[in-house]
Amino acid sequence: MRSLWQLCGASHYDKRVHKKSIACHDNSYPPTFPTQCASRARTLLVGSSHIVNAHIVNPQSCTALQSFLSILSLHTDRRREASVRDSSAPVHPKSFYLSPPSGSMSDEEMNPAAVPVPVQDVQGDGRWMSQICFTAECKDAEPEVLFVGDSMVQLMQQQEVWRELFSPLHVLNFGIGGDTTCNVLWRLQNGELQNIRPKVVVVWVGTNNHEHTAEQVAGGILAIAQLLTSRLPRSKVVVLGLLPRGERPNPLREKNAAVNALLRSWLPRLDGAQLLDVGGCFVHSDGTVSPGDMFDFLHLTAVGYRAIAKPLSDLLMQLLEEMPERRASLV
Amino acid sequence: MRSLWQLCGASHYDKRVHKKSIACHDNSYPPTFPTQCASRARTLLVGSSHIVNAHIVNPQSCTALQSFLSILSLHTDRRREASVRDSSAPVHPKSFYLSPPSGSMSDEEMNPAAVPVPVQDVQGDGRWMSQICFTAECKDAEPEVLFVGDSMVQLMQQQEVWRELFSPLHVLNFGIGGDTTCNVLWRLQNGELQNIRPKVVVVWVGTNNHEHTAEQVAGGILAIAQLLTSRLPRSKVVVLGLLPRGERPNPLREKNAAVNALLRSWLPRLDGAQLLDVGGCFVHSDGTVSPGDMFDFLHLTAVGYRAIAKPLSDLLMQLLEEMPERRASLV
Repeated sequence: MRSLWQLCGASHYDKRVHKKSIACHDNSYPPTFPTQCASRARTLLVGSSHIVNAHIVNPQSCTALQSFLSILSLHTDRRREASVRDSSAPVHPKSFYLSPPSGSMSDEEMNPAAVPVPVQDVQGDGRWMSQICFTAECKDAEPEVLFVGDSMVQLMQQQEVWRELFSPLHVLNFGIGGDTTCNVLWRLQNGELQNIRPKVVVVWVGTNNHEHTAEQVAGGILAIAQLLTSRLPRSKVVVLGLLPRGERPNPLREKNAAVNALLRSWLPRLDGAQLLDVGGCFVHSDGTVSPGDMFDFLHLTAVGYRAIAKPLSDLLMQLLEEMPERRASLV
Repeated sequence: MRSLWQLCGASHYDKRVHKKSIACHDNSYPPTFPTQCASRARTLLVGSSHIVNAHIVNPQSCTALQSFLSILSLHTDRRREASVRDSSAPVHPKSFYLSPPSGSMSDEEMNPAAVPVPVQDVQGDGRWMSQICFTAECKDAEPEVLFVGDSMVQLMQQQEVWRELFSPLHVLNFGIGGDTTCNVLWRLQNGELQNIRPKVVVVWVGTNNHEHTAEQVAGGILAIAQLLTSRLPRSKVVVLGLLPRGERPNPLREKNAAVNALLRSWLPRLDGAQLLDVGGCFVHSDGTVSPGDMFDFLHLTAVGYRAIAKPLSDLLMQLLEEMPERRASLV
């Protein structure tokens, strides 16, 4: 009988990134956390042998044990029993990756939407990295609220409503157009969370994950929320539901709705994280989306942003109010 | 001795689009316009045998003879002599394609940036076609000024400065994010110019042509300007120069500058078209572009748009003033 956590190359060396990693099978439950190996690993890959192909660069430190326990708790609805042995042993790998509690995804496969991947500068103007560097320069502002995501987040800062409702909350915008869950995961693990302690993080990403299923996208978003609650245990995480897209009903709109449904089920099990689904108002009774709300049937107009800004700012105010150490200036 | 205009398949049938086309060699000058064939063709492809691979769907009607003469006039700097024989014969193919007066591009090859190509709906939400349909619905406004291009044009409409400086000029915005010269050419040939007679057309596209050289991009923009002056002979065409991109000096910035240099040389030879280069103010003395002007080092902020809006609106006002039939409401 093989071990519960069979190691696939106990100390896999990723030539591309010069980091030690460990890949583990999770074929059977209850698993035993491979403490003796993980404690020496810089990166713990919770998944299968497939994950040695994951693109990992300079992972940031995190406490994996807590994450591991969360993963198990997320799996309990699909497993008869889940427990952790040797969990009291100190384990400090530098990062972790989790598979979402999926139905159709094989446990043998890493969720590709939960793999941190930087954007390749195929165009050649270095804009993605420039934007990351610029956000790093903004941290001196010591934000209370951090927004992270794709163009939906980035374009919000160009709106009057941003200055009106969000700037007074001491916000920072880490939105980059075109980003997927993979790109956001990479950024968060590669410096964006350093020297920053926001009280609330707003996550809005996933509509660009064209190569991934709804389940994978939801898993990728969950991985981001998981990383944030792990790295910022005192912070609250607000995940914004994906918006409908396209003028008329279409498969991508259905997929985004499916992502939201999965998040609605999964996120409440993650302490400190919650879903805010703000897209309900954009689909008319005949199934169409108006260019007055989404100028290209994807990105929001000023009118569209105003529609989502009010419930979001109300929630942010409420969360900040509930926090005891809230800044005097905001009281 | 072979004929000056050697026909390659005098009546090529494009199975994809069920249109008759004619492909011609232009190996030698002065050429004789292949009147006897072109008059029967629905599509006249001025180029070489390569162009039978061009993706052509439902080309709109235009008078090719005038365009043909313009092409020749554009070529005269590179040819010792150019004349048209049989040019008085009636020729009415449904569309035409031209190669730019390039130095490095072989006369044997069609400029890929001047080939009309629709955006494939690979994502599956039909947004590109929805946006085209929406612009068609806007034509009732009978615009004096038409903007056509990519996201640089589209996002301008989301700015306060649009309502302030451009809306009073009776403008219409046909900008679609991500579009290349090929996509704009396709749109203009497939309905966007129907039932519309703007007095000025502003063209701003080319920074997304990542697969094309500077020369090809400039040729693609020239093809758009050529199409516009041909279809709207009483209109003026203002081509906006491509902006610098990327935080620091990079190859794409050099390429966009090279496109502008070529347009500066070529456009004055096209009656009714002119270049307005508005990008000079965005590069600082140290070579950097500020995120205060371009939030992602490509797209303009409100501050950036305001910087280009003033010289552009001044030019538009001047062009409209010069036109005798200007609307009483605008005088």
